[in-house]
Amino acid sequence: MSAKIRLYVEHPLGAGQTVPLDRDQAHYLFGVMRQAVGGHISLFNGRDGEWRAEIAEANKRTGVLLCQEQSRPLMLPPDLWLLFAPIKKTRTDFIVEKAAEMGAARIMPVQTEFTNSDRIRQDRLQAHAVEAAEQCGGTYVPEVDELQKLARVLDHWPEDRQLMFCDEGEVGAALALATEEQAKAPWAILIGPEGGFSEGERKRLHALPQSHVVSLGPRILRADTAAVAALTVWQQRYGDWQ
Amino acid sequence: MSAKIRLYVEHPLGAGQTVPLDRDQAHYLFGVMRQAVGGHISLFNGRDGEWRAEIAEANKRTGVLLCQEQSRPLMLPPDLWLLFAPIKKTRTDFIVEKAAEMGAARIMPVQTEFTNSDRIRQDRLQAHAVEAAEQCGGTYVPEVDELQKLARVLDHWPEDRQLMFCDEGEVGAALALATEEQAKAPWAILIGPEGGFSEGERKRLHALPQSHVVSLGPRILRADTAAVAALTVWQQRYGDWQ
Repeated sequence: MSAKIRLYVEHPLGAGQTVPLDRDQAHYLFGVMRQAVGGHISLFNGRDGEWRAEIAEANKRTGVLLCQEQSRPLMLPPDLWLLFAPIKKTRTDFIVEKAAEMGAARIMPVQTEFTNSDRIRQDRLQAHAVEAAEQCGGTYVPEVDELQKLARVLDHWPEDRQLMFCDEGEVGAALALATEEQAKAPWAILIGPEGGFSEGERKRLHALPQSHVVSLGPRILRADTAAVAALTVWQQRYGDWQ
Repeated sequence: MSAKIRLYVEHPLGAGQTVPLDRDQAHYLFGVMRQAVGGHISLFNGRDGEWRAEIAEANKRTGVLLCQEQSRPLMLPPDLWLLFAPIKKTRTDFIVEKAAEMGAARIMPVQTEFTNSDRIRQDRLQAHAVEAAEQCGGTYVPEVDELQKLARVLDHWPEDRQLMFCDEGEVGAALALATEEQAKAPWAILIGPEGGFSEGERKRLHALPQSHVVSLGPRILRADTAAVAALTVWQQRYGDWQ
C-alpha cells in the first residue's frame, strides 16, 4: 500500500536500502509534516518504482529512511516531449505541472520569434515537475530542459519523432491522418506562444515532414489551456489513456 | 475586423447603438489601456455577437461607445454544464477561467461530502468567466451559479441531460457507449473533489441512468487538470470541436 506522503529522492531504492535525507527533505518531513521515527512514507526516484519506507532516524536537519517493500512498479510515460514557449511565471509553472501530471516524458521550453521571455529558472521548473509527480502518484519525473531556440531544435529534429503542432485558426483534425507506423513512433507536442507563431515559423512547421497540425476548437485557448487540451488529445489517441 | 481590446457589456448592441460605460470600464479603457476618443474596441454582451465600436466620449469616470458594425456573429457554446467541487482559491478561479475558454455554457460549483469549502465568491468567479471570454475571443459568457449541494442537484437532475462523470480509478472509456440520441442530448461534466467522492455519492452517481463514467488516464489528475481534460474529451466527441 502506498503511504499518504510521497517523496521524490535521487537515491537508489530497493529492499533493505537506507536512504539519507537532505536538509530540505528533513525539514519537510519532520518540521512541516510532523512525521517521526516509525512513520511510513512512499519514495520514488524515477527508476525503481515506488517504495514504502519507514523513518529510521529523524533529526532537525537530517534523517534516514529504510525501504521496506515496493508499493508500485515503475510506470514510464509514453515517449512524448512537450515543447512550449514560456509565458508569464504562474502560467509557465502551471504548464510544467500539468505536463508532469498528464504524462509527458520531457519538457522543453522553447524560444520562438514572438516569445517575450528570454530566460527561465530551470531549477524552479524542475522542482515543480517533481512536486507534480509527488502529487499525482507518478513514479517518474519528466526532465525540464534549459530554454532553447525553437529554430535550433527544429534544425536537429529527430527523423522518426512525430510533431503535433497546434496552430490557431487551423480547423480539422489532421491528427487522424497519422499512419499506423507514425502512431507508434516517438512524438512531441508543440504549443505556440500567446502571440502565435511568426509566418516563417508556421511555414517551416507546416513543411516539416513529421508535423501533424491539430485544431483545438473554435475558441482561442491560452497557452496553458492548450497544453492540457493537446496532451489529452494525444494521450487518448496514441498514449497510455487508450 | 475585431479590435484588439474586447470588452463585455450588458447593454444591447446593434448598428448605431450608443453604449454608456460604467466607472470600472472607463477606468480600464482610458486609464489602464490609454484609449481616447476615436479609438476602436470590440464589444460583446453574450446575445448580439461582437461589435466594433468607436469611442465617442471619454471621461475619467464615464464614457460612451458607438457601435458601428458587427465583427463576429454570436457563437453559443454547446449546451454543456460543468459541475465541480470548489478547491483552493487559485485553482477554483482557474477552473472557471478554463471552463469559459473551453466552451461550457454554465458553471456549477457543487458541494460534495468531501468538499472543504462551504462558500464561494460567486461575483468574483463570474468576473473571471467574463475576463476569460474577453480574452479567448468568445461572444458568450457562461453563467456561474451559487454553490449548491451535489445531492440536491442530483435530486432534480433533468431527465434528458447526460452526465459525464470522471471517477478516479475507473478504467475504460464508457463514454463511447453513449447512444446517438444521448450524444445529441444536453450534457454535463462532473469533476470530483480532490479527496474523491464518498462511497454513497459514487453509488448514487453510478446508479443515475444518465451517467457515463469516463477515465482520464492512469495518473491521478488535480481537479483543475481534470476539468480541462474532461472538457477536451467531451468537446472532441460531442461538442463544437468536431
